[in-house]
Amino acid sequence: MVFLEKIRRTARMASLLTVLILPAWWAWSGDGALEAAKGYRERNGARILQEFAHFLSIPNVAQDLPNMHRNAVFIQAAFKKRGVEMELLELPDVPPLVYGELKAEGATRTLLVYVHYDGQPVDPTRWTHDPWSATLYSAAMKDGGKPRPFPRPGEVIDPEWRIYARAAGDDKAPIPAILAALDALQEAGIPRTSNLKFLFEGEEEAGSIHLKKYLELHRDKLAGDFWLFCDGPMHQSRRPQVIFGCRGVTGMELRVFGANRSLHSGHYGNWSPVPGMALAHLLASMKEEDGKVVIEGFYDTVTPIGALERAALAELPEVDDQLRKELGLAWTEADNAPLAQRILLPSLTVSGLESGNVGAKGRNVIPAHATARLGIRMVKGNEPEHMLDLVEAHIKKQGYHIVYEEPDQKTRLRHRKLVWVSRFQNGYPAARTSMDQPIAQQVIAAVERASGETVVRLPTVGGSLPLFLFTDLLQQPAIVLPIANHDDKQHAPDENLRIANLWMGIDIYAAVFAMPE
Amino acid sequence: MVFLEKIRRTARMASLLTVLILPAWWAWSGDGALEAAKGYRERNGARILQEFAHFLSIPNVAQDLPNMHRNAVFIQAAFKKRGVEMELLELPDVPPLVYGELKAEGATRTLLVYVHYDGQPVDPTRWTHDPWSATLYSAAMKDGGKPRPFPRPGEVIDPEWRIYARAAGDDKAPIPAILAALDALQEAGIPRTSNLKFLFEGEEEAGSIHLKKYLELHRDKLAGDFWLFCDGPMHQSRRPQVIFGCRGVTGMELRVFGANRSLHSGHYGNWSPVPGMALAHLLASMKEEDGKVVIEGFYDTVTPIGALERAALAELPEVDDQLRKELGLAWTEADNAPLAQRILLPSLTVSGLESGNVGAKGRNVIPAHATARLGIRMVKGNEPEHMLDLVEAHIKKQGYHIVYEEPDQKTRLRHRKLVWVSRFQNGYPAARTSMDQPIAQQVIAAVERASGETVVRLPTVGGSLPLFLFTDLLQQPAIVLPIANHDDKQHAPDENLRIANLWMGIDIYAAVFAMPE
Repeated sequence: MVFLEKIRRTARMASLLTVLILPAWWAWSGDGALEAAKGYRERNGARILQEFAHFLSIPNVAQDLPNMHRNAVFIQAAFKKRGVEMELLELPDVPPLVYGELKAEGATRTLLVYVHYDGQPVDPTRWTHDPWSATLYSAAMKDGGKPRPFPRPGEVIDPEWRIYARAAGDDKAPIPAILAALDALQEAGIPRTSNLKFLFEGEEEAGSIHLKKYLELHRDKLAGDFWLFCDGPMHQSRRPQVIFGCRGVTGMELRVFGANRSLHSGHYGNWSPVPGMALAHLLASMKEEDGKVVIEGFYDTVTPIGALERAALAELPEVDDQLRKELGLAWTEADNAPLAQRILLPSLTVSGLESGNVGAKGRNVIPAHATARLGIRMVKGNEPEHMLDLVEAHIKKQGYHIVYEEPDQKTRLRHRKLVWVSRFQNGYPAARTSMDQPIAQQVIAAVERASGETVVRLPTVGGSLPLFLFTDLLQQPAIVLPIANHDDKQHAPDENLRIANLWMGIDIYAAVFAMPE
Repeated sequence: MVFLEKIRRTARMASLLTVLILPAWWAWSGDGALEAAKGYRERNGARILQEFAHFLSIPNVAQDLPNMHRNAVFIQAAFKKRGVEMELLELPDVPPLVYGELKAEGATRTLLVYVHYDGQPVDPTRWTHDPWSATLYSAAMKDGGKPRPFPRPGEVIDPEWRIYARAAGDDKAPIPAILAALDALQEAGIPRTSNLKFLFEGEEEAGSIHLKKYLELHRDKLAGDFWLFCDGPMHQSRRPQVIFGCRGVTGMELRVFGANRSLHSGHYGNWSPVPGMALAHLLASMKEEDGKVVIEGFYDTVTPIGALERAALAELPEVDDQLRKELGLAWTEADNAPLAQRILLPSLTVSGLESGNVGAKGRNVIPAHATARLGIRMVKGNEPEHMLDLVEAHIKKQGYHIVYEEPDQKTRLRHRKLVWVSRFQNGYPAARTSMDQPIAQQVIAAVERASGETVVRLPTVGGSLPLFLFTDLLQQPAIVLPIANHDDKQHAPDENLRIANLWMGIDIYAAVFAMPE
């Protein structure tokens, strides 16, 4: 695509410039750090991979507390070795939060680095190899890669090699990268320019159930200026991306009622209320066919994006036409408005419908009830409970009486329009960090120097992470800075990390830790 | 209820009158037949029950062809013994149709009698006794009845006894009743006043799949004036009922589409079309919230009922308030219009809805499709294919492109609104016989004499039977004349027949077979 090509040319030009400028400027700009990182990983690649393989061999499903503890101790020891003051913060029956602090002489700025060390549960029968035994491949399996031995010290490492194991990409990858970056700066005598605080969570894939409690308990320790949330994959173009926010998530289930038992559609059809039809009217009243939600106030609390965000949006690669084609969609909501803009608004979707049966199990009945699962994604400014209040207010406006538990006979007989609402209990709000934060600009500059690519800047992603705990609870700006390859099969069998991404991670962390103030 | 009480008083008065009139009038009115039936069953009750128990011991699930053949041979032999010319009409791999003819000297009228000898499949683990071994009880199980031996000849039989076995009520019950009625008339020397033709189907509970073919093959044999469709239970008030029609049945499944795979509701929510929402709009467009179907022409082909039907409706016991209370319904469609009137119109119901998952399996996705199962019940005048055409025309009017198989990528990309329609293949039309048929009036009079009760006259039932094969294919009037108790647990475990209903069946058939022309 023409647009992408332009971006690539700009990036190459920028790379070229960095080669031509003075070494003195390097130190100031952090490019000394970058050279240090590159040299270090070239000399120590074999050992870095070996150590990572060992780390990956410790199973890390959040519920497996003994192994989670082994992982925590591994991290604690590895960072301690680099001079980081380490501590395990514990709650009963929860994987420890591994915390570390590393001061930098004369630094006035503190960066906080988040990584999670747990991984998704595995079904080993669906994996090519043992998910807890890292296997090195000469390339991605999908590209015909073959298993190969881990390299001997000094052996040339092909950056297209991949290391297969659970959590190789999501989210153990940043840990060896950070360790190597610290070593590289240390070895080259390049000073870190920020104090660093590290937070390693062991429960992210299980829903970060205790993260809020942990953060509240240790709020004082976590004073600092800026969070780097190191998780997720890079952009599909293989360019690094920096994400300034994510949507929040909530929802509810609605159940409307007919008779107190399923009725024969012949004996009672045209007389008994039909729950599936009532539900259709209720859902249709919430959203127009073109995608506009007509629940009063649904869009009213959205915090508008700023000038930098608008500029970043304008620069995003155009992906919609291709995406529609791949997904078999003749149209998308709001007259084909771009995806990147649409995720800046809250969404209302139907993620489930159920009444009676369809297909082979279908019977000629009027089911006793019909249920819908409504999903709501929120953007900055939307509060989960308030959004659900708006939906309930809308439902009442349609004449419904709302109950919060299965209605009894008396309630059924009293209300012609009756709905059982069950709000999701695990929702949380969106998070967004303004793009004009100076530190954000410094991080982006460092990442661009490290990668030689123009960073993709996303004001938000459509999905949800508990980032609000950092931006809203701790009141600190936070950005997501991923290093894994986009095709790392996160959450799936045969999860993997591309070595080039691990190397780029080392370079990025070294550049960021030494970036000018 | 006051209204019901009035009906009961009128019926008692009528009973009283029949006791006071002359024996000569008895013969003409058929009451001689009634006395003959009563005397016969009082003298032969033990033997009638014994023979019925034997008949019930032959398993009668339609797919069990060897046993179905044993049932057919039993029926053939039993009717042959009473002078009926019997024949097994056969098709390969289908239970035989048992056919019989019994001429009456000088009769100009031919009654055709339909009974089905197959029963619903059983799950013996849910039965109190072996479903294929008739067990006599001193009363209904639910009323504290206990098993008891079958009576010895001459022993007094309590009409509240019940006989438990599969098909005791549905639909072997009419067979011993007809046999006894024929015996009673024969013994008393009372002439039958109609030629009789008997048709015993062995596949009703399996959907009468081959009945149409059988009727077409043997149309000539089945010349006659009036069908008595002997199936189903009496009215809940324990009064006999005569049913002049039933609704037809058809329907379709509709599936609307989003992306060609389930999407992450965060990444794509507010951009991707939401199939559950599209389906809600489509369904809501078909029927107003008060129950009125707004598909153009949906009510246009209804054949209005006549004066007798309107009068019969006006006399029906008022059941709606009680029914709403029992079913937990604060309202019913069309401003609480009476059920008996509502089933005189076609109905559109949603018998199934499915998209993604709800409850514990619910996930934050935008499902790839949403499916609805639409049920349509039809009344006289509605043709199944025409009704489905109307629904499809309505769908097209909403801007949809209809496909009849899973759409390919090209089709998906071409049509913004795309729906896959799958019409039911096994639908059939309603049937209705006019109440002013003279034979119908004669049958009702005979049933009222036999039962001493005012017959409940239903212009139609809401459910569906393949009655149209008789009324429309064979072009003969047909009424449904049930004898089983309403609480016979038809189709369920512990199916049973109340002896009083068997006795009343004998009386009714004797009265009908000897009714004046």
